Amino acid sequence: MTAITELETPAVTVHLDVMADNIRRVQAHLTRHGLGNRPHIKTHKIPAIGQMQMAAGAVGITCQKLGEVEVFADAKVADDVLLTYNILGAAKTERLMALARRVPRLTVVFDNEVVARELSAAAARHHLDLEFLVECDTGFRRTGVQTPDEAFALARLARKLPGLHFKGLMTFPNRDPDTREFFERALALFKQDGIPVPVVSGGGTPALATVDRFPMLTEHRAGTCVYNDAMVVSSGTATWDQCAMRVRATVVSRPTADRGVLDAGSKVLTSDLYHMKGYGHVMEYPEAHVAHLSEEHAVVDFSACAARPKVGEVVNVVPNHCCVVTNMVDEVYGVRNGRVEVAWPVAARGRVQ
Amino acid sequence: MTAITELETPAVTVHLDVMADNIRRVQAHLTRHGLGNRPHIKTHKIPAIGQMQMAAGAVGITCQKLGEVEVFADAKVADDVLLTYNILGAAKTERLMALARRVPRLTVVFDNEVVARELSAAAARHHLDLEFLVECDTGFRRTGVQTPDEAFALARLARKLPGLHFKGLMTFPNRDPDTREFFERALALFKQDGIPVPVVSGGGTPALATVDRFPMLTEHRAGTCVYNDAMVVSSGTATWDQCAMRVRATVVSRPTADRGVLDAGSKVLTSDLYHMKGYGHVMEYPEAHVAHLSEEHAVVDFSACAARPKVGEVVNVVPNHCCVVTNMVDEVYGVRNGRVEVAWPVAARGRVQ
Repeated sequence: MTAITELETPAVTVHLDVMADNIRRVQAHLTRHGLGNRPHIKTHKIPAIGQMQMAAGAVGITCQKLGEVEVFADAKVADDVLLTYNILGAAKTERLMALARRVPRLTVVFDNEVVARELSAAAARHHLDLEFLVECDTGFRRTGVQTPDEAFALARLARKLPGLHFKGLMTFPNRDPDTREFFERALALFKQDGIPVPVVSGGGTPALATVDRFPMLTEHRAGTCVYNDAMVVSSGTATWDQCAMRVRATVVSRPTADRGVLDAGSKVLTSDLYHMKGYGHVMEYPEAHVAHLSEEHAVVDFSACAARPKVGEVVNVVPNHCCVVTNMVDEVYGVRNGRVEVAWPVAARGRVQ
Repeated sequence: MTAITELETPAVTVHLDVMADNIRRVQAHLTRHGLGNRPHIKTHKIPAIGQMQMAAGAVGITCQKLGEVEVFADAKVADDVLLTYNILGAAKTERLMALARRVPRLTVVFDNEVVARELSAAAARHHLDLEFLVECDTGFRRTGVQTPDEAFALARLARKLPGLHFKGLMTFPNRDPDTREFFERALALFKQDGIPVPVVSGGGTPALATVDRFPMLTEHRAGTCVYNDAMVVSSGTATWDQCAMRVRATVVSRPTADRGVLDAGSKVLTSDLYHMKGYGHVMEYPEAHVAHLSEEHAVVDFSACAARPKVGEVVNVVPNHCCVVTNMVDEVYGVRNGRVEVAWPVAARGRVQ
């Protein structure tokens, strides 16, 4: 095993004990609340970590893109996969059908009739059955049907199409009270019509803290919690010590007394800012402000720090958003007690299709 | 050849005629101003495109990371390579020495004594000679020595170290009047001491328009201009028709009358916002506002558009910043007249070390 100090920088490290603890804690929390744990693999994109989540008790995994399902199916990570994305077009529906043959239980999600009809036609052509959830926009304003009535109408239409079987509803992320109110009204419509809704799937890492406010949920999808990041810490639902992903970076320049420049820029940390003030949290200099990123540089303001680093010093940065950092590198390094225990290829990196 | 319509989305396309025109126009412009053209390959990361730039008359190429030099050296793109990054640490200096043996003319850049001494020690150990430029911060506030005096002092110190040969000064980007004033004062110091400064290297794509204001420059480094992007258009130095990179994306959801969702999110377009209002320019719907990105979704507000797209429609998005989009995908597609002429692997993608 290599010493962690021998890693060339920038390097994305995963602190294995912290990650194991995160996996265990989230699973115990959801089990305690009677919810299925269906981790979103986009955060790590690594089959070996998906296997750890399954071994801890997950009911299955969540993928966002076909390419992710393909990688995780190749590695036989889970028999139960939920694909939470509108799949459209001849090439993609054919890939989906090939996956439906390989994955024992593959559930799809859609929010509109065009997708429903394409999937039905493909399923019928291949003599396959597809279970589906209807995606509901319960306040995030991205994808999803807009009202309980629309959810009900789309489910009723799609369940009559050949090859499609209605299993339930999904949203991202859980929002209080919008998500609860949306699902309460939708479930009443299905009940009135005698249509069972066995699955109600919620999601989000900060939303883990409030799952008890959504009694209709049957399962929860969270990705970020396997690593945690500055965004989760700022939401108050994790501490810095619970952040497993840390980007090792070298101070390559100290142009002024206050300014230091790291060799990790937006090509590693990404420009994801959300509502944060800086582009990451420097563990060794918690008062430092990662003020600006260009592709290969992070410009850090150390003016609030009592001590300042020298050129050549290595620091550990907790990124704002760990999921997107995963997607920037070909390998991440699992570390423990100052040693590199494993170099994991990020197998599903860049699978945007 | 495949029809462009058969590409699965999201797909990063490069319009070959537009790119060829960009390469020719920039070369002619710099030649007219008596400046060497040293394109920054970070924008495309593709050796075949570097070869086109060399064939058009470039004096050499610019790389930011060792891994980029390695890829472009393997492909023998240029005999003359400038590496504009502080190289530190045993592993990296060894890689640099291996490159110095392979690349006929490899020039390094640094802004501090720690790097100068490490490179000198490595060069001496390997019995190699390295030419270097001193990086100057002429107003961008990233890396670089802060004053002409510091530039002079670092050059004087480093040129006396074994294995190092002073060749000149560099900055990024050219800023008017700061860069001119910095270099004027620095060059006076070198002249006083009788030290020749054969190279003064400037850079930046928008700065191409003002190279005549910096008469001391001997060469110019620009990356983005090979493709152009929304940022360059907003600077007033290119038009939408001169943007060669376009991300093909499918409208996968139309949750409301105004809202459309594309299947290209921050994993393709990236979160680079700079001072733009949205995350890209939709060619077919120029009034559309790409309001929000998540990893796999672009949420677009079509409220200002007379016509609105349907689910399944494909659009072309000019990204804010083309260099970072290149780094998100394994392949880009060279297209002309509606056909895919070439699929280029992005050979230097992810070379952050």
